[in-house]
Amino acid sequence: MATLTVPQSVPSAAEDCEQLRKAFAGWGTNEALIISILAHRNAAQRKLIQETYNQSYGEDLLKALEKELSSDFERAVLLWTLVPAERDAFLANEATKMLTASNWVIMEIGCTRSSHDLFLVRQAYHARYKRSLEEDVAYHTSGDFRKLLVPLVSAFRYEGPEVNMILARTEAKILHQKISEKAYSDEELIRIVTTRSKPQLNATLNHYNNEFGNAINKDLKANPEDEFLKLLRAAIKCLTCPEKYFEKVLRLAINKMGTDEWALTRVVTTRAEVDMQRIKEGYHRRNSVPLDRAISGDTSGDYEKMLLALIGHGNA
Amino acid sequence: MATLTVPQSVPSAAEDCEQLRKAFAGWGTNEALIISILAHRNAAQRKLIQETYNQSYGEDLLKALEKELSSDFERAVLLWTLVPAERDAFLANEATKMLTASNWVIMEIGCTRSSHDLFLVRQAYHARYKRSLEEDVAYHTSGDFRKLLVPLVSAFRYEGPEVNMILARTEAKILHQKISEKAYSDEELIRIVTTRSKPQLNATLNHYNNEFGNAINKDLKANPEDEFLKLLRAAIKCLTCPEKYFEKVLRLAINKMGTDEWALTRVVTTRAEVDMQRIKEGYHRRNSVPLDRAISGDTSGDYEKMLLALIGHGNA
Repeated sequence: MATLTVPQSVPSAAEDCEQLRKAFAGWGTNEALIISILAHRNAAQRKLIQETYNQSYGEDLLKALEKELSSDFERAVLLWTLVPAERDAFLANEATKMLTASNWVIMEIGCTRSSHDLFLVRQAYHARYKRSLEEDVAYHTSGDFRKLLVPLVSAFRYEGPEVNMILARTEAKILHQKISEKAYSDEELIRIVTTRSKPQLNATLNHYNNEFGNAINKDLKANPEDEFLKLLRAAIKCLTCPEKYFEKVLRLAINKMGTDEWALTRVVTTRAEVDMQRIKEGYHRRNSVPLDRAISGDTSGDYEKMLLALIGHGNA
Repeated sequence: MATLTVPQSVPSAAEDCEQLRKAFAGWGTNEALIISILAHRNAAQRKLIQETYNQSYGEDLLKALEKELSSDFERAVLLWTLVPAERDAFLANEATKMLTASNWVIMEIGCTRSSHDLFLVRQAYHARYKRSLEEDVAYHTSGDFRKLLVPLVSAFRYEGPEVNMILARTEAKILHQKISEKAYSDEELIRIVTTRSKPQLNATLNHYNNEFGNAINKDLKANPEDEFLKLLRAAIKCLTCPEKYFEKVLRLAINKMGTDEWALTRVVTTRAEVDMQRIKEGYHRRNSVPLDRAISGDTSGDYEKMLLALIGHGNA
């Protein structure tokens, strides 16, 4: 359930481009106009706007936006405007760079996109960076993190609903045994988490819970500060219950001393067209504050307006 | 360079189906007619024939062929008739089954198909087996073999010509160091072999040869009988010089006491539309016997005729 709202009658891409051009023209930029257009177009429409802009004005729309905008607002508009596969390729590439390295972003992309969408990210990555996604992830990670992240971004999981209950039982036992031995990066554990279909993994984890009395993520909390265990728990959450994971990322980003704008922008721009409605509901439930109010309290100006537009603030 | 020959004027799929139907009809089967049609149609044409056959007679062509044919000839016709992605999915699946397990076939598919073709195999695998290719490979392998094979079949290597010579130098050193330490399944070595683009890997191996005085596969022969080293050498050969690899598979299949028909059929059916011309040239050079004469000496009947048709016997 997306929170993106698109007007009932959408102007043509040419009209949108003309308006954007106006917003850029002269002294100062009309940020409100930019938001009123881009924050209310879906991925296909934004793609068409980019193509049309390029044809009409011989200039890349993203470059024009970069020139006109700045700071958090700029990042939110640029990330949002990119089509999903290119946005993910961009985020993943950033996450493999030294100063912006993030195992979390890589894990998120590997675990929460559909198999087909993840493949589109890998294609976009080739086109833009002349290397493969898994190549850069493998190069910029090591040890246990590499063992987990490379198969996560290389996976092409089966997506049918079929579940093998006998297998779920066997693999729940394997998981339990490895965790009891504190062999958290054991190759069997990694294999199960990184290759099984999401419904199959879910069945395995349900069986784990029923048979051994704890949810697996509770048993993976033996050492709550261990960075690898944190990532592994997050991966399991992303694979089985992504809305809950994203709710928590938002919660931590907003409650932090000094908001974590990167996380906030990332979650809002990547989920607004996917499951932001559910994330908002979960956020409200968990924090007793609606997400839009929390965002308003922590951000300001055009950046605030952009985020609120994307999460459907003011809609029925 | 393919060896497949397609007549200048190809009958319609409906006409081909009618002829095939005739070949199956009555007492006995007209094998020559089957060969004259199927062994001279490309993948797209064979696919259309399958679809047309199904529509016209409400029967699966492959099932009909299975009923009519037997033994090595049957396997050759069936494998050949399948479109490449489905054929590879079938071979890979077979290679993960207990009685037909083969790390070699899995490696071959992971290393010698283009990135896009390998992705098509993974899609075909989902459709046919309701699981993912990497899932089955991971489940049915273990230890060093799993460490090598899972990333090989999950890879989506970049295919552009760009080569980074500084990286080639650095990674040649890493490879040399790991091999000197006999750390043949070291994660850095596996990373380089399984994620780099083929041109990049080639540059690295050239540098290795120049700098350290031996081709890498020579240094990987420390223990010639070690099964993992054999597979690793073969993978490197497949990634850098697939025709040479396939020539050797054919050589060993034919020279064996009792021909290895499975290998022979696999190589001929999977390469006839790709690079069989080069494989044939290499075979002749290396064995001082043309491949068609070698095959004739080792096989007979319809099976022989089918293979010879596929490798372009009797063509200019």
